[in-house]
Amino acid sequence: MVPAGDPTEQTVEQLAQRMQSGDVIIDGGNSYFKDDVRRAQRCREKGIHYVDVGTSGGVWGLERGYCMMIGGPKEAVQRLDPVFKTLAPGKGQTPRTPGRDKLGGTAEEGYIHCGPSGSGHFVKMVHNGIEYGMMQAYAEGFDIFKNAVSQDLPAELRYDLNLPDIAEVWRRGSVVSSWLLDLTAMALTENPTLSEYEGFVQDSGEGRWTIQAALEEAVPADVLTAALYVRFRSRQQHTFAEKMLSAMRQKFGGHVEADAAKKSA
Amino acid sequence: MVPAGDPTEQTVEQLAQRMQSGDVIIDGGNSYFKDDVRRAQRCREKGIHYVDVGTSGGVWGLERGYCMMIGGPKEAVQRLDPVFKTLAPGKGQTPRTPGRDKLGGTAEEGYIHCGPSGSGHFVKMVHNGIEYGMMQAYAEGFDIFKNAVSQDLPAELRYDLNLPDIAEVWRRGSVVSSWLLDLTAMALTENPTLSEYEGFVQDSGEGRWTIQAALEEAVPADVLTAALYVRFRSRQQHTFAEKMLSAMRQKFGGHVEADAAKKSA
Amino acid sequence: MVPAGDPTEQTVEQLAQRMQSGDVIIDGGNSYFKDDVRRAQRCREKGIHYVDVGTSGGVWGLERGYCMMIGGPKEAVQRLDPVFKTLAPGKGQTPRTPGRDKLGGTAEEGYIHCGPSGSGHFVKMVHNGIEYGMMQAYAEGFDIFKNAVSQDLPAELRYDLNLPDIAEVWRRGSVVSSWLLDLTAMALTENPTLSEYEGFVQDSGEGRWTIQAALEEAVPADVLTAALYVRFRSRQQHTFAEKMLSAMRQKFGGHVEADAAKKSA
Amino acid sequence: MVPAGDPTEQTVEQLAQRMQSGDVIIDGGNSYFKDDVRRAQRCREKGIHYVDVGTSGGVWGLERGYCMMIGGPKEAVQRLDPVFKTLAPGKGQTPRTPGRDKLGGTAEEGYIHCGPSGSGHFVKMVHNGIEYGMMQAYAEGFDIFKNAVSQDLPAELRYDLNLPDIAEVWRRGSVVSSWLLDLTAMALTENPTLSEYEGFVQDSGEGRWTIQAALEEAVPADVLTAALYVRFRSRQQHTFAEKMLSAMRQKFGGHVEADAAKKSA
Repeated sequence: MVPAGDPTEQTVEQLAQRMQSGDVIIDGGNSYFKDDVRRAQRCREKGIHYVDVGTSGGVWGLERGYCMMIGGPKEAVQRLDPVFKTLAPGKGQTPRTPGRDKLGGTAEEGYIHCGPSGSGHFVKMVHNGIEYGMMQAYAEGFDIFKNAVSQDLPAELRYDLNLPDIAEVWRRGSVVSSWLLDLTAMALTENPTLSEYEGFVQDSGEGRWTIQAALEEAVPADVLTAALYVRFRSRQQHTFAEKMLSAMRQKFGGHVEADAAKKSA
Repeated sequence: MVPAGDPTEQTVEQLAQRMQSGDVIIDGGNSYFKDDVRRAQRCREKGIHYVDVGTSGGVWGLERGYCMMIGGPKEAVQRLDPVFKTLAPGKGQTPRTPGRDKLGGTAEEGYIHCGPSGSGHFVKMVHNGIEYGMMQAYAEGFDIFKNAVSQDLPAELRYDLNLPDIAEVWRRGSVVSSWLLDLTAMALTENPTLSEYEGFVQDSGEGRWTIQAALEEAVPADVLTAALYVRFRSRQQHTFAEKMLSAMRQKFGGHVEADAAKKSA
Repeated sequence: MVPAGDPTEQTVEQLAQRMQSGDVIIDGGNSYFKDDVRRAQRCREKGIHYVDVGTSGGVWGLERGYCMMIGGPKEAVQRLDPVFKTLAPGKGQTPRTPGRDKLGGTAEEGYIHCGPSGSGHFVKMVHNGIEYGMMQAYAEGFDIFKNAVSQDLPAELRYDLNLPDIAEVWRRGSVVSSWLLDLTAMALTENPTLSEYEGFVQDSGEGRWTIQAALEEAVPADVLTAALYVRFRSRQQHTFAEKMLSAMRQKFGGHVEADAAKKSA
Repeated sequence: MVPAGDPTEQTVEQLAQRMQSGDVIIDGGNSYFKDDVRRAQRCREKGIHYVDVGTSGGVWGLERGYCMMIGGPKEAVQRLDPVFKTLAPGKGQTPRTPGRDKLGGTAEEGYIHCGPSGSGHFVKMVHNGIEYGMMQAYAEGFDIFKNAVSQDLPAELRYDLNLPDIAEVWRRGSVVSSWLLDLTAMALTENPTLSEYEGFVQDSGEGRWTIQAALEEAVPADVLTAALYVRFRSRQQHTFAEKMLSAMRQKFGGHVEADAAKKSA
């Protein structure tokens, strides 16, 4: 399996040249689904099968298992079924979804054939978009907790909260329990102020591609987009947009930043 | 324990009148934390302790257990500790957070004393705000899946996805696994099109109060707010804002809705 | 000048075939700037100049004049300067920007050469993105006015406001005065309830392309994106996302939409 | 006329004590409309009229005139009509809105009686909310222009744009022409890079109160809220939310910020 981007492109090219009709290429990275469709087409012309597999589980895959989202031609995917079954986490301890037995399929084993070429990475792409949104929901909530002690609030409505304890107690029966919450509890237990983190947050291609898909489908994706923009913003000291706001305020109101800053300080 | 809102106000009043110094009132509903602070103050004057308890677990509390977030005067909360310990879900099967043992406290038992009056309901309030954001993240992601088959997309980039299978496979090792995902898998297993739901979505007070807290603390809460606004919008056929947009478009561009509609159809 | 989209593609093709080296094609529609770049490249191979011109002014162009944003090779644009100067609105009554005289150029005449191929339509594209954001800002504000009379508000904090008067008074010296406000005043003067509009709002390509550009540049564009999503939402009765929210609420809280609806009614 | 906030409260108190039945207090500042309602009630008990007046025009009021939004008891407002008529900018050069003559009223003179106590400041409050949204729309658009030269973009799709010229040309007949655009053109003409501004942006009470009103009315105000949050964010180096995101990424993916930073650099 190969990483995403240009190296992938080249690797697929080189593999395809060395392969014979009937062979299968598996792209298990995070390729853009439109690239999969293009590559699969080129491979098809040579009788080579191209299968795109998105995986989720992070660095915990070995311990927790990881699930696979597979796209590609039916016969090729079926031929590889033993491979996927072996790699997949299987039913494990996960409690069964009521009525699931009637549906059959391999989902409970931890892998699915999503559809034709690109669909595996398409499903994984949106998975990451959702991940951004969930992370941001927790992050904003804990930011509100962190600032609940602000001196701008009336003394009797000011709270100095224990963030590790809140994350921990929510792991027990709350509606917001999740694996991301488990990780949050870990991080806050190690360091309740997260002082070792700067807050400089990267985004991988999937987050942007998810919004691009929403635009192409005309689906309002307010939360997934806002979560992505927070990351864009986190990597700048100030945006040019913010300078524009200061400039306009100065022009219509004579507001001077320095004074304003003092006022808010 | 009593429900939130005016009945709560009256019940607390009546209880306080019948009680003696040293007695304790527990508000286990979803009161606004500022009301708690006010009520606790009035009770304190009579020597009565007022304790606010937020709980999370939904209708599944009995089966999964539910956790408690407690606010109020230290001695009253400590006196009630046996009650909370009994009601709390306890450690259960939840894997332990590394390093947690060093921190101690009751969080692993499923209940915590958050701080002074109102802090229990404050923490529960933000919990619900986060819940809205997480729900919206999943909802937008599956909306993108649902529309991946749109006729507006090029045929080779169009996917007819199996939503119940996607929800199910993500329950096994994926980064977005959560209890809300388990519930989503249940709902989609029952009915993959969710045709029995209209999409008319209520919001309880907590969601709005969370945003109000963010405003008071000057915390940017883009995701939590967007999630709330989607619910506001879901309960209207068209907003007046949308009529305004149509009116402006008609004025500057001569755009007529009917034609526009046909174009998009 | 030709409209955007496939007809444009074909027209450019056909024109290019009939033209000779040194001829110029002007695309005065709303083409996607990346298409301009591609077409200009193909034309260049035949020695033909391709110039992209974005115009703004709506159906009022004749009366108010309209401005032009021009992209393309310098010599071709300079050769066409007399044409642009003639079409442009000129300085008109617009009060001069202090210090503008030092900068020179044609901007005050109502047209500019933005840069190489595609830059004219790129600037026009973002113009439309901004237009969406401004329209939505007014629309939300007037929606808040419209609902200020809501029965959910305390009687003494309820206002039955005269929307046409508010739009009109803001046209005189207020910070939010603009041409879009003039149009809003016209529409509200004709019909204060805008009852002839349904609120079904189209979006043209430019709005989506603007967000796409923001994604490619990693620029947080929260307002421009939210304005676009409102239009997406306005064309649906309910999104699948909203059905997902209802389904999750039903699963964790036993919330039934019908009851919820009654409660909110 | 008196400034907003506690000084206002005290001044109104002191004035009311010295005044006699029939006297009128005018609050021409930016008071919160709920404070107006409370104060007007207290004044009414003494037979004193309290009138709240919101004004818009910034430091340009003298030159451009400024408009007034007035709230309070009818007879008091009518008695003061000569005062308002004198202060108001009047019809000026503003072209008449078609059909306006049929509506009558004082809006064309530049002042209106919005309704009972608080309504003047309510209308001014939302005016400022809209102002934030419009400013942010321009700011994001110019941010996209600024970054159109980014090295991350393909060379043939990279543009080095002249921002002062774009702002200037849009002042002539474009759909986004406005007074805020005139001010933007001024600022960019003075300094195209706005290098003298840091981008530290204050928010006054009105912006937050507008969102609070939207929450109370259940009106989705995505754009006005996003514009406010950008200002909150602009005043921090990094939010705690961003540290949370970094912490979660480190936990599930082993992502280290430093590496991530280098990658993006």
